[in-house]
Amino acid sequence: MSKNLTTRAEDYSKWYNELVVKADLAENSGVRGCMVIKPYGYAIWEKMQGELDRMFKETGHTNAYFPLFVPKSMFEAEEKNAEGFAKECAIVTHYRLTNDPEKKGKLIVDPEAKLEEELIVRPTSEAIIWSTYRGWVQSYRDLPLLINQWANVVRWEMRTRLFLRTAEFLWQEGHTAHATRVEAIEESERMMHVYADFVENFMAIPVVKGLKTESERFAGADETYCIEALMQDGKALQAGTSHFLGQNFAKAFDVKFTSKEGKLEHVWGTSWGVSTRLMGALVMTHSDDNGLVLPPNLAPIQVVIVPIYKTDEQFDAILEEVNKLVIALRKLNISVKFDNRDTHKPGFKFAEWELKGVPVRLAIGPKDLENGTYEVARRDTLSKEVVSKEGIEVYLQDLLETIQKDLFTRAVDYRTAHTTEVNSFEEFKDVLENKGGFVAAHWDGTAETEEKIKDATKATIRCIPLDRVDEVGKCVFTGLPSKGRVLFAKAY
Amino acid sequence: MSKNLTTRAEDYSKWYNELVVKADLAENSGVRGCMVIKPYGYAIWEKMQGELDRMFKETGHTNAYFPLFVPKSMFEAEEKNAEGFAKECAIVTHYRLTNDPEKKGKLIVDPEAKLEEELIVRPTSEAIIWSTYRGWVQSYRDLPLLINQWANVVRWEMRTRLFLRTAEFLWQEGHTAHATRVEAIEESERMMHVYADFVENFMAIPVVKGLKTESERFAGADETYCIEALMQDGKALQAGTSHFLGQNFAKAFDVKFTSKEGKLEHVWGTSWGVSTRLMGALVMTHSDDNGLVLPPNLAPIQVVIVPIYKTDEQFDAILEEVNKLVIALRKLNISVKFDNRDTHKPGFKFAEWELKGVPVRLAIGPKDLENGTYEVARRDTLSKEVVSKEGIEVYLQDLLETIQKDLFTRAVDYRTAHTTEVNSFEEFKDVLENKGGFVAAHWDGTAETEEKIKDATKATIRCIPLDRVDEVGKCVFTGLPSKGRVLFAKAY
Repeated sequence: MSKNLTTRAEDYSKWYNELVVKADLAENSGVRGCMVIKPYGYAIWEKMQGELDRMFKETGHTNAYFPLFVPKSMFEAEEKNAEGFAKECAIVTHYRLTNDPEKKGKLIVDPEAKLEEELIVRPTSEAIIWSTYRGWVQSYRDLPLLINQWANVVRWEMRTRLFLRTAEFLWQEGHTAHATRVEAIEESERMMHVYADFVENFMAIPVVKGLKTESERFAGADETYCIEALMQDGKALQAGTSHFLGQNFAKAFDVKFTSKEGKLEHVWGTSWGVSTRLMGALVMTHSDDNGLVLPPNLAPIQVVIVPIYKTDEQFDAILEEVNKLVIALRKLNISVKFDNRDTHKPGFKFAEWELKGVPVRLAIGPKDLENGTYEVARRDTLSKEVVSKEGIEVYLQDLLETIQKDLFTRAVDYRTAHTTEVNSFEEFKDVLENKGGFVAAHWDGTAETEEKIKDATKATIRCIPLDRVDEVGKCVFTGLPSKGRVLFAKAY
Repeated sequence: MSKNLTTRAEDYSKWYNELVVKADLAENSGVRGCMVIKPYGYAIWEKMQGELDRMFKETGHTNAYFPLFVPKSMFEAEEKNAEGFAKECAIVTHYRLTNDPEKKGKLIVDPEAKLEEELIVRPTSEAIIWSTYRGWVQSYRDLPLLINQWANVVRWEMRTRLFLRTAEFLWQEGHTAHATRVEAIEESERMMHVYADFVENFMAIPVVKGLKTESERFAGADETYCIEALMQDGKALQAGTSHFLGQNFAKAFDVKFTSKEGKLEHVWGTSWGVSTRLMGALVMTHSDDNGLVLPPNLAPIQVVIVPIYKTDEQFDAILEEVNKLVIALRKLNISVKFDNRDTHKPGFKFAEWELKGVPVRLAIGPKDLENGTYEVARRDTLSKEVVSKEGIEVYLQDLLETIQKDLFTRAVDYRTAHTTEVNSFEEFKDVLENKGGFVAAHWDGTAETEEKIKDATKATIRCIPLDRVDEVGKCVFTGLPSKGRVLFAKAY
């Protein structure tokens, strides 16, 4: 197949959009701002879900499901949260269609079926969940509540991009309730670490753990922990957030409990989420001008085998050989596909599986049969070698692990090379403009300066890294004193 | 704990509602007609999802995700489908809230943020999916498309009941496209068989496979296959449906392909779904006046162990014994919980786990320690016996299998006893009124008679069983000729 993919150097943004569509991950739908996640893309999302779900359960969480709709009065109960999401809400106002009296076969909204109270399609579920928790919590014995939900949410975005910013997206949202402030902070930190562990070790994407500044915080939170990744074009991407909600939602929804000491107190809360946005991070971290590059942990197909033959006899001999290998690989839990289509040539198949990011490709032809070998090609390095069929299943198992590690290392190296300490605003602008990446700079700690830097450069403070070194310095913009560097970047 | 559960004999409907809430399966939310599925209920749903998903994939299907919203013009494209769902649609008309100029801190729908075209919250996804398939199908080589979606859907019901009828519910919906009529019919039949297999062998609920009459058919389908179950109050419940859509949606959305012979033809379609309604069927088939009864395949906890002790020494000795058993059971993939709460007495715990339907309860006290035994209680029969700890893990494994089979047998026996052949309308009414269950009767095949019988008795034709015997007879209502019996019942 001919890939006709725009290169990253030509137009990174176009490369991304084309790749998502051509690799069968997702496409735009007939509904403004909403995407269709295609089977190949969804299979990757299912792998993410499976691993995250396992990690959530291992840390004591259970799943539940809360309504899609939030009545307006409930939505506005926590004022900051409501204010933060009010501008991007899809609103249900009616509950029935009726025949259009003017056009046969057409329907109109039935004006008599107007809801007494409008329903907001959840942009996030704190309101509906905390209004439910009120009935679930009486005593300290009912705490903690450690609940997660897999769901769709809607945020009416004006400019949308597949996976990165869509009107509807899929995510998980954890919502927990605790007896003490300390426990709730521990929980929000724990989930940030779970996310970092998942994104680094499963998706092979290195992240910086940190705190958001007040202006970048989740609406309704007292503190937002985040993990920030760096894409190949030097822009940052927020890969996950975990919020310490204080008692804000407990107060808005009157969720109280009797403590061990018999006192009536408000509950402490957290919420945390990652979304299909991670699919965008995956594409933009590892892929290249030939197409997707998938870390083996996330690849729906880890090994593809392409037969090279001219006669039926040759095909039969290859088939016999491949069948044995397929069984051996499946025993090792390696997902393998034998591409036996007779409608396409090997070259077409090579290009297609390259585009789709299958980590390892095996080719086998008559000469390999004679020699007892396979040709093994790595997607990440595009390198090839000839490998004996004896013990090849273990060789492939090791190779998949190597590729997973190498992808992470390569991404770490890229990030290291694109994280720059700067000490003046000139330098700041220069690095941002000509090199991109994270810019580690001193900042005076005020929202005002943050805003001014953003206006001047489009860069925002991605986070205050948790592992930052105490270092006396001067704000690059105002010269006022600072206690340590924060990470700036342009961001998705 | 005191269960205070209404008995089935007192008020079946009240028993059901109370049980669903008290057993922590679900509860009504602050949003009209929408439920909250609580962690314990959701854990059962996850087990259903896991098994169904496995079965779908085994039969060649993959998952994908399509938008929640359907623009009105797209929704109305397939006229019968649109007409069928028009009266129960939630409709999004606006995309922004703004501050209420009259009340500080309150929000109103922003009149300036009205959508150009209204969006229907999907009541089912044929429209959005077929509008997408148009872009995916050109040649016979692109067929079949075998796609499933796990999603939430909204149907604005006026009278709702937890799980059985809710404004929002969770389901899976398969949507397939085929080159020929025969293939599509085979697919709809295959999925009906998959559903029957799942419901009978995994949920232990016997079903009748059959065809719906024209008036009970899915709006937009040429044929609807269904599986019908019988609840303990003698009412039927439709447990799953699989539709042969003919070329209706292909024509409405212009989905054509070039056949092997080079002709341009419309694609043939199917769709099929089961929903959280199955949770209602589960409760109403097996449970009793003491609470839930769960088939072991669906029980989040299969075995619960309750320690009986007075001193710390006794507890420690029990703990040592139980730890060994827990490890042995987990090796056999049996999910086991050791209820070591010191805040509740054994009697409270027994009642709680009975209410929650845990299939097997073990109790162990100082005497058991001396004798090397456990007391084993079955939830389904409420019987107890004392079992030696030697080999008890295999004993329990066998017992769980026995319980699974016994529940199915018991339900089959109930259905057999409540399926009655009648040959006159007097008999029909008498059986329906005094005994309930399925009434097998001759019917003249007209929608008119079907309607009249429904008006007179509230009974509907649940299905024309696939395995019905050819039998010349006379319609119980009109006396007109009939070729075989159909199953009538009052239904959920």
